[in-house]
Amino acid sequence: MSLGEFELIAQLLRPLSLGYPGALELADDAALVDIPAGRQLVVAKDAMVEGVHFLADDPPASVGRKLLRVNLSDLAAMGAEPLGYLTALARPARIDDRWLRELVAGLAADQARFGLFLLGGDTTSTPGPLTLSLTILGTVPTGAALLRQGALPGDDIWVSGTLGDAALGLRILKGLAVPDEEGLVLIDRYRTPRPRLALGQALRGIAHAAIDISDGLVADLGHVLDCSGVGAEIEAAGVPLSAEARGVPRALLGALTGGDDYELLFAAPAEAAASVAAIGERVAVPLTRIGRITAEPGLRVLDAEGRPMSLQKPGWRHF
Amino acid sequence: MSLGEFELIAQLLRPLSLGYPGALELADDAALVDIPAGRQLVVAKDAMVEGVHFLADDPPASVGRKLLRVNLSDLAAMGAEPLGYLTALARPARIDDRWLRELVAGLAADQARFGLFLLGGDTTSTPGPLTLSLTILGTVPTGAALLRQGALPGDDIWVSGTLGDAALGLRILKGLAVPDEEGLVLIDRYRTPRPRLALGQALRGIAHAAIDISDGLVADLGHVLDCSGVGAEIEAAGVPLSAEARGVPRALLGALTGGDDYELLFAAPAEAAASVAAIGERVAVPLTRIGRITAEPGLRVLDAEGRPMSLQKPGWRHF
Repeated sequence: MSLGEFELIAQLLRPLSLGYPGALELADDAALVDIPAGRQLVVAKDAMVEGVHFLADDPPASVGRKLLRVNLSDLAAMGAEPLGYLTALARPARIDDRWLRELVAGLAADQARFGLFLLGGDTTSTPGPLTLSLTILGTVPTGAALLRQGALPGDDIWVSGTLGDAALGLRILKGLAVPDEEGLVLIDRYRTPRPRLALGQALRGIAHAAIDISDGLVADLGHVLDCSGVGAEIEAAGVPLSAEARGVPRALLGALTGGDDYELLFAAPAEAAASVAAIGERVAVPLTRIGRITAEPGLRVLDAEGRPMSLQKPGWRHF
Repeated sequence: MSLGEFELIAQLLRPLSLGYPGALELADDAALVDIPAGRQLVVAKDAMVEGVHFLADDPPASVGRKLLRVNLSDLAAMGAEPLGYLTALARPARIDDRWLRELVAGLAADQARFGLFLLGGDTTSTPGPLTLSLTILGTVPTGAALLRQGALPGDDIWVSGTLGDAALGLRILKGLAVPDEEGLVLIDRYRTPRPRLALGQALRGIAHAAIDISDGLVADLGHVLDCSGVGAEIEAAGVPLSAEARGVPRALLGALTGGDDYELLFAAPAEAAASVAAIGERVAVPLTRIGRITAEPGLRVLDAEGRPMSLQKPGWRHF
């Protein structure tokens, strides 16, 4: 017995909309959203396909949480506050109501945690794999959003948290053998990104440019450099690795090129270093300086001896 | 040779964003949108799956146009003006760059026609069927949106255009034999919905409730009745059929229960009938009164002799 489209919306999804009157209890053609004066809407959309962005045997609650969190990470990178989201869910017959209930439980837990509501969306059947997309809405004071453009020569390059854990977690799920204790932490990092919302908001007016690391450090720093028309030099030895990753072979390569970390990378003027460090303390997120922006274009990754490293895989591409 | 994700965005999608500075040329994590003072954001999201919502051999440009237009129709039903949209595109290997270029050409033609821009989105690979979703953003003067709720006993029930054509078009594509001349018109109605934006906007302050007919007249009128806590009586003989549909067997059943018409259905006070007729003239959309709202709950469809008809299939459900 499988819930039909209308029952699915009424029983499972509608409760996620209560608390935001403009969602109209998901009973209308669209939702109505008021943007406070002096603020801009920030909007992004990311899709996830079973077998491409998550694994068929990932717990459904973690699939729902990841879907919401990768989009929240886009808001974090802009320094925005979350407001609401819409989902589209293409459901194969194999996905039963119990699976969906767990997915929705994951969404429910995280929307309460991050302070936003479901505003609308669509559900449909599909003969293919489970395909999810989510559109996230947030707001930011007008003109204050952090962008990928704006990094200046001389700026420090900072990253939050540790890098490469998610890529290792995925390798472990695909068969890489590591001790259980480290393995579970790394798998959790793959399945449950931590959108750095408080950090992004605190960096407004301080960081010159920011991005979240979804495609890998080298690829995403490359986007900032392209948009800003600058280059950069980073020291590989300075890239922060977790205690769990440090013992795994090729952890540094994962940290440089592995995707799915959803940490923030940002450029800030050298004279703001103390302010940045204080922000890290205040929002309780470790921050590490890994290099600097240069006028000379291109990205140079230096090894422990100061020699340029050559990286074969610049980052994750979905095709 | 297939465009990678970054090339696809840069070459095909970025041009659709130019003209809206807040889209940041699709080069950032999210888009920035300013909502003018005194207006509310209106947001909706619909998905389409190959083989479920369109056919594998539908022309790609018409798939793109339908994706945009079904979402525009949601704005029309709220009385909103279009602003922008985001897409998610899960692409099977079989869909080549030429197909995508034609899809994008369809989007380009229609976004120019309806006055909106691409603001962002996501592209990914999929082992399954082509799966598209689109999030549409519009605005409406604060408090002026048309809702499904608000119909009052005594209101006239109106519909725009003709009903049932799209369902017949789909039946023709699936093998129903009709003369070519009628067939092509009906197929076009299935493939190319006409979002009634000018009509919806003109009905603000006049209609008590509105919806677009995507699931079928009976099903969608039912949504209005449920949301408004009222009933209705409609005369089947008064439901407007196109000249092309009139000769096809079971055209009336298609008009009552077939989906995909994307015409507007609305309830307006009887004393506004002349104003409604004048609006129809002004926006050049035929409007037909098909019944009235009743205090008694439930929907009664009356045949030419005034007897209640029983309808087996209340409307299209996606599961």
